[in-house]
Amino acid sequence: MSTNASDGLNRRLVLGALGALPTLPALFGATIAEAQTAAADPLPSWNNTPAKFGILEFIRATTGDPSSATFVPPGERIAEFDQDGTLWVEHPLYTQFVYCLDRVGVLAKEQPALKDREPFKTVLSGDAAALAKLSDRDLFEIVLTTQSGMTVQAFAADVKTWLATARDPRWKRPYTDLIYQPMLEVLHYFRANGYQTFIATGGSGSFVRVYSEQVYGIPPQQVSGTEQPAKYGYGKDQTPMLTYEPKLVLDNLGAGKIENFWLTYGRRPNASFGNSSSDDQQILEYAKAGAGVRLSMLVLHDDAKREYAYGPAQGLPDTKVGTFSQALYDEAMKSGWFVISMKNDWKRIFAFDG
Amino acid sequence: MSTNASDGLNRRLVLGALGALPTLPALFGATIAEAQTAAADPLPSWNNTPAKFGILEFIRATTGDPSSATFVPPGERIAEFDQDGTLWVEHPLYTQFVYCLDRVGVLAKEQPALKDREPFKTVLSGDAAALAKLSDRDLFEIVLTTQSGMTVQAFAADVKTWLATARDPRWKRPYTDLIYQPMLEVLHYFRANGYQTFIATGGSGSFVRVYSEQVYGIPPQQVSGTEQPAKYGYGKDQTPMLTYEPKLVLDNLGAGKIENFWLTYGRRPNASFGNSSSDDQQILEYAKAGAGVRLSMLVLHDDAKREYAYGPAQGLPDTKVGTFSQALYDEAMKSGWFVISMKNDWKRIFAFDG
Repeated sequence: MSTNASDGLNRRLVLGALGALPTLPALFGATIAEAQTAAADPLPSWNNTPAKFGILEFIRATTGDPSSATFVPPGERIAEFDQDGTLWVEHPLYTQFVYCLDRVGVLAKEQPALKDREPFKTVLSGDAAALAKLSDRDLFEIVLTTQSGMTVQAFAADVKTWLATARDPRWKRPYTDLIYQPMLEVLHYFRANGYQTFIATGGSGSFVRVYSEQVYGIPPQQVSGTEQPAKYGYGKDQTPMLTYEPKLVLDNLGAGKIENFWLTYGRRPNASFGNSSSDDQQILEYAKAGAGVRLSMLVLHDDAKREYAYGPAQGLPDTKVGTFSQALYDEAMKSGWFVISMKNDWKRIFAFDG
Repeated sequence: MSTNASDGLNRRLVLGALGALPTLPALFGATIAEAQTAAADPLPSWNNTPAKFGILEFIRATTGDPSSATFVPPGERIAEFDQDGTLWVEHPLYTQFVYCLDRVGVLAKEQPALKDREPFKTVLSGDAAALAKLSDRDLFEIVLTTQSGMTVQAFAADVKTWLATARDPRWKRPYTDLIYQPMLEVLHYFRANGYQTFIATGGSGSFVRVYSEQVYGIPPQQVSGTEQPAKYGYGKDQTPMLTYEPKLVLDNLGAGKIENFWLTYGRRPNASFGNSSSDDQQILEYAKAGAGVRLSMLVLHDDAKREYAYGPAQGLPDTKVGTFSQALYDEAMKSGWFVISMKNDWKRIFAFDG
């Protein structure tokens, strides 16, 4: 992204911000910098750009003055966050999918017949080019097969063990280190102001729930995801058990994310954060369409140096994982959402950036 | 229920209680009565019987002493409650079903063709005998038809309006007055001790969420129910909207209640309250099977005078709504669950009992 394009982005962000939040102008300029020096900055990893001001202003407008028309009572404060690409790194593969690929090897030892069956044969071949060509249906079958047949406790224990040893190939760190520090600050800031924070993920809720409390401070019951059913039955000594099945009951892709969020929580988020056209468009639309002051934000991955750069919005490379289309970008600008530029709006990306 | 049968029940309850809670004996006898006189009684509508002591002891064991092996950290305290027959009256018809029957009349005005279509024709005839003969499939169709085609907001508003005017035929009161006061005290007592309280209902979560916060202090996001999908779409001016569809996506009957509880919250309840063989058996089993001190309780409707008497457990009449089988009763006794006798364990049933 060139400096010019970046300048253009910032101008559009300011316009979007002004349209979205009636009282935002009061927070711009020197006063905000002064206020932040005086008080502790709740978002120290954010540059002083419109995205940050938009968050601060949203919290002020909805939690500051109980007599204000924009005030939201504590019990009704709901903030929703996508996970992959919004709270942590999703490239080059969704972390959950790396887990599933690793599990194919484990399963093949238990069920040797898998070695001759596609798409498992391809996964086991280690042929990266062939792997990249697997269809969505293949990927889907891999997830359902590798995440079923276990009790819910055995699955959680397996994910936990895997997360303790698996390392991201670029940073050589546990995947749970690859959380965006600026977003962790947003989660804390929202909760400190009485918001309940939720994850709504296109991935498996059952996977995210294993670490969501420890890593994000979000308890399992506030994680909504794509879900395989857990079948009730009895084990040894008639012990009751729940065992994951190789099918889907809730599909959080596309509009499914807000449909299932409503289904399970009966709530419209006051604030919604996402990054992808395939997953986050409808829930951000629905959050923004509610009464009062609303906040919809999209993370744009435009920082190839510190993380990754992909779009295809704003001319960034089009990749298979986490697509952010130009149409979604345009909708965001038109509808008063914020687009967070990782390059321009975030002082640092990870806690280990120092 | 004869006095003898009632005495037998109490003896079995004591045995069940002793088996369930290792430290229970310390709470029996004069000391508990003294302690309750000294401190404010958190369960004033309960008689001083084993059921009450079981609740008090469960809270003491799981929240009292952080160094105890039975202590549960605050973030992990989950209590689950069935609604119909456990938190409020379910006879002669589930309240939600009364709403659906009333809505048939409203719908027939909007869609005159319904008047000639079964089972709607029977409902509109007002013939109580014919109505009582409708099959489960008929009832199911009535619920799906009357609860769909509306946006989620329009549905909630309609339920709210209905609840404000509808009256229970026996007590001539709003249905939301027919909450069991002893159970309200349990909800408050659990929350005061750091438990998150959840409803898991065989009825529609979307229905219960309309009043759950106001009536039970349980927010919508902690209500899990049988669910019709809410389809995403756009209304006038491209306004995003969610509209209920006439199908099922989550079915909370039988084992479905714990399967869906896990699916949406990823939690095993520490305590579980129910009353019916068709709905509550598996979730009570699963709650009780967890590690540490667990509490599973069943409400037995054995008070024909103050509420209703039905079973068929303990020789009470077998009715279509809210069946509590003798097999479930026997399982409760064998497994260290508590059976709450409304007649013997509850000092009063409703707040308006004075």
